[in-house]
Amino acid sequence: MAHNEIHQYSIVSALMDGVASHGVPISTILAYGDHGLGTFRHMDGEMIMKADGSIIPIDPPRNTMTPFASATRFQPTVKTKASLKAKQDLADLLESVFPSGRNHFLAFRMDGLFSSVHVRTAAGQGSPRDQMPGAVERQTTHTFHSIRGTVIGFRAPEYVTGINVVGNHLHFISEDRQRGGHILALETEGEVDVQAASLSKFHLELPTEDE
Amino acid sequence: MAHNEIHQYSIVSALMDGVASHGVPISTILAYGDHGLGTFRHMDGEMIMKADGSIIPIDPPRNTMTPFASATRFQPTVKTKASLKAKQDLADLLESVFPSGRNHFLAFRMDGLFSSVHVRTAAGQGSPRDQMPGAVERQTTHTFHSIRGTVIGFRAPEYVTGINVVGNHLHFISEDRQRGGHILALETEGEVDVQAASLSKFHLELPTEDE
Repeated sequence: MAHNEIHQYSIVSALMDGVASHGVPISTILAYGDHGLGTFRHMDGEMIMKADGSIIPIDPPRNTMTPFASATRFQPTVKTKASLKAKQDLADLLESVFPSGRNHFLAFRMDGLFSSVHVRTAAGQGSPRDQMPGAVERQTTHTFHSIRGTVIGFRAPEYVTGINVVGNHLHFISEDRQRGGHILALETEGEVDVQAASLSKFHLELPTEDE
Repeated sequence: MAHNEIHQYSIVSALMDGVASHGVPISTILAYGDHGLGTFRHMDGEMIMKADGSIIPIDPPRNTMTPFASATRFQPTVKTKASLKAKQDLADLLESVFPSGRNHFLAFRMDGLFSSVHVRTAAGQGSPRDQMPGAVERQTTHTFHSIRGTVIGFRAPEYVTGINVVGNHLHFISEDRQRGGHILALETEGEVDVQAASLSKFHLELPTEDE
């Protein structure tokens, strides 16, 4: 599989609409690359995939299905260090590093010590076809302080509205793999390592078992 | 290359915005499949690709660049005959054949005798970065009567607004390859052959030389 191409299963508007009962096995997503985000069957938890080849379920068991995920075989073209006070600082940094990239996808990763990371974890659908706002209402949120870990993220251009998450989408996993989730806010403790790449090829696989 | 996957170069909103100076060579699009639609550098003409392996330039020379095209390696799963009074009849037919397919892409082809086919051909950008409405204003339109030929088309789901042409998008080429264009209206002369397939994998390649 070529580097820095983004592969995606299903579309986010289907997920919003509650299409989360079927999906593809995690093994399909692993074949997409080594850097990814997603969720699990019935929107039960958040998924993160790191370059060590593991998909880390933040709540549910390993051998499960995913109704929505995107991933790339990540080969960073930019490596830098940054001290960030907020999520917006990361957005600004990526814009300055890829000034002409606003119509491309970006993949990025941060490693280091974070003074705070505020995350949510979707708590699952109450019943099949429950729409996403419901699942997010039943979310759990946590704030971790002085925590070492990894942020995996994608930035998607505006024209993929309804297909992927427009703008920056970040998940966190702690170094000990015990804590993580979908990032709502973050602040670094001094400088962290930042790696990023621009992605100009997008591959979308649509569910066929569900309208 | 697998059958019935849709491959696309660039996005239609970039084309609308006048991004048509660069592009990829026709050979790239040929590698995508044997059933396709597109335009040429500077939006000079309409492109159609048929299963005999040829890309047929409706106006410009063969060895040119395309700033926007989509194609599939077409393997029809449905073959039928239909008599159509209007473009809408084709839309209705496709909906009845693929009742649960409204969130998938469809590829289709018609072969036979048409009592009338009304087409337009974009007349090219006046200057680089001219936006599409300008190029379409300078379009040529033709109505062909009692003409034998082929219609190549795609139907794209609503969520690809800005990426591909939402709804049905059809080009026509006459049997003698001398006449054709982007179809605005059509009527068949009796029954024509209709072939179609649903496409659940979408591959998008973005331009990298132009923001």
